[in-house]
Amino acid sequence: MAETRIATLPLFHRACLGEPVERTPIWIMRQAGRYLPEYRALRERHDFLTSCRTPELACEITLQPVRRLDVDAAILFSDILVPLPGMGVEVAFNPGPQLARTIRTEADVRALVVPDPRESMRYVLDAIRLTRAELAGGTPLIGFAGAPCTMATYLVEGGGSKSFNAIKSLLFSAPALSHELLGICADTAGEYLAAQVEAGADAAMLFDTWAGLLSPADFAIFAGPYVRRVFDRVRGAAAKTGRVVPRIYYAGNAAGWLAECRHLGADVVGVDWRLDLDRARSAVPGLTLQGNLDPAILLGSRDLIRERAAAVLKAAGPSAHIFNLGHGILPETAPDNAKFLVDIVRELSARESLL
Amino acid sequence: MAETRIATLPLFHRACLGEPVERTPIWIMRQAGRYLPEYRALRERHDFLTSCRTPELACEITLQPVRRLDVDAAILFSDILVPLPGMGVEVAFNPGPQLARTIRTEADVRALVVPDPRESMRYVLDAIRLTRAELAGGTPLIGFAGAPCTMATYLVEGGGSKSFNAIKSLLFSAPALSHELLGICADTAGEYLAAQVEAGADAAMLFDTWAGLLSPADFAIFAGPYVRRVFDRVRGAAAKTGRVVPRIYYAGNAAGWLAECRHLGADVVGVDWRLDLDRARSAVPGLTLQGNLDPAILLGSRDLIRERAAAVLKAAGPSAHIFNLGHGILPETAPDNAKFLVDIVRELSARESLL
Repeated sequence: MAETRIATLPLFHRACLGEPVERTPIWIMRQAGRYLPEYRALRERHDFLTSCRTPELACEITLQPVRRLDVDAAILFSDILVPLPGMGVEVAFNPGPQLARTIRTEADVRALVVPDPRESMRYVLDAIRLTRAELAGGTPLIGFAGAPCTMATYLVEGGGSKSFNAIKSLLFSAPALSHELLGICADTAGEYLAAQVEAGADAAMLFDTWAGLLSPADFAIFAGPYVRRVFDRVRGAAAKTGRVVPRIYYAGNAAGWLAECRHLGADVVGVDWRLDLDRARSAVPGLTLQGNLDPAILLGSRDLIRERAAAVLKAAGPSAHIFNLGHGILPETAPDNAKFLVDIVRELSARESLL
Repeated sequence: MAETRIATLPLFHRACLGEPVERTPIWIMRQAGRYLPEYRALRERHDFLTSCRTPELACEITLQPVRRLDVDAAILFSDILVPLPGMGVEVAFNPGPQLARTIRTEADVRALVVPDPRESMRYVLDAIRLTRAELAGGTPLIGFAGAPCTMATYLVEGGGSKSFNAIKSLLFSAPALSHELLGICADTAGEYLAAQVEAGADAAMLFDTWAGLLSPADFAIFAGPYVRRVFDRVRGAAAKTGRVVPRIYYAGNAAGWLAECRHLGADVVGVDWRLDLDRARSAVPGLTLQGNLDPAILLGSRDLIRERAAAVLKAAGPSAHIFNLGHGILPETAPDNAKFLVDIVRELSARESLL
């Protein structure tokens, strides 16, 4: 890419690509959420699914933390399970997700369809167009989907789980059927994320909350190849738009297999707080890291927040880092502490030589 | 230690100490449990707590897998929450643990006591004496306790949890009180394990299921020093008996901070399946590793079990390894698959040169 063009990219994009930055950009996973009084006020009038499915509401919720926190990226208010009804499985939120049925047999898998996102997820694409217009090219907007392994986990378990025995049992006792299911999930996520990019998303993120249940060997068999398939599709869609659309992979609980993330086609790998970023750096050299403050640190004192934010910045180094929490912000977090974090990261990471 | 004396130790002990072995020893976490029909039959007549609290029943359940599987170590049938009533907190199992109250305030913590195990856990010590007599010096018997961080997590959460927000909030918003609580847990576990060693336990194991919730920095602050305190107490108790009593630390979800386990006073570090044993080896050089097959692999085919058992043995190398699952055996496991694993590990790890 020509040097002049990179210089005109937003700070967030330059960090995603490992280019020089004047400071470390920051956004917060679940920054649009229950810890914000303006979110709770809106949710008193509209339930979760209605909020996801009404573009004006999804847009408004997406913008709430941008206004309050002045973060360096917005992320569309939505849920990784949004594609499921289009695949043939209804979902309710009470408040955790509950699927109308589980996918465990050959007949179950064969009945699934790869939905056309322009039909069953049209409201998401409308929300992206609306939010992009509101942001007016300022703050970048991240679109996202669930990674195939995580989608398959929800489909097989029928919701959240503590033991994840059903998905593990399927992977190990019926590997061929598991690969069929993972392929359907990958195609669904790929088409969905590609449509989000075409609708204007400035970055494309895959959340793999549950891949951390796997051993390194099983990550390489059941998770990695399908992530790569999604990102290949996203790369193609982005190329057609002519825009730079970074690909971000959130790898939950990945300390044991992070090195497997080198070859997934991601520009950025997000990690949780369970490993230090200097160690993560050596596992995925050349990629940008995103993270990784423990969200619970925001329940502590300002001194603690400052000290731990500084430690994350130090471990990450001066470039190829996007500051974030290691997981979603906790609902009991004081919004002022989130704002304090954004401000302190901005202050501590400022590179005078680049100002 | 004199070389002659080491040569007379059981295979399990020699592996714990990193000494030459003729094959890799194996036992299975939760080997006495619901996957065994003989266990379920006994539990139909006696509830969980009664089974723990009646030495004859605990002994019988402990011996069931020794008879059926011919494993290289027995582990006392009990529960890590057994010390809680003596500390002042009653526990019920329905079937997950439910504490009568949570420990979250200064008054809560100050009301806890470090129990005398000879009083409130006397039935455990009686079960150890009985089981040791039954084993007649053959199969070694492992005694165990919950690690301080895991005990504190249960006390603060009041049971299991998915988010663990209460313990995290306490650690970060009230660190001084947290250290007080962790100290009480460490003294309780230390006295309890020391008493088990005095009663005849041949090895002393600490289970730290929840330390994997912590970042490397927080492990070093809130978990590691208290593990060390327990093992110091156990070392002292073992020295008085004149017996060799290996200390085993099970570190759940530890891939990010395993190197912190070098200096806890453990002879053996158990890890789950989320990292490969060759990587684990380089994190804790000089210690014996225990693990680390994914328990769900036992739900797969014999070919899969053989292939993955061989991979674990290869990653671990020919010594300083005790084969185990990375977590407790799943209740839906076929007992024959557990027996197949024991047999195949024995076959695959046999070192002809040492026979």
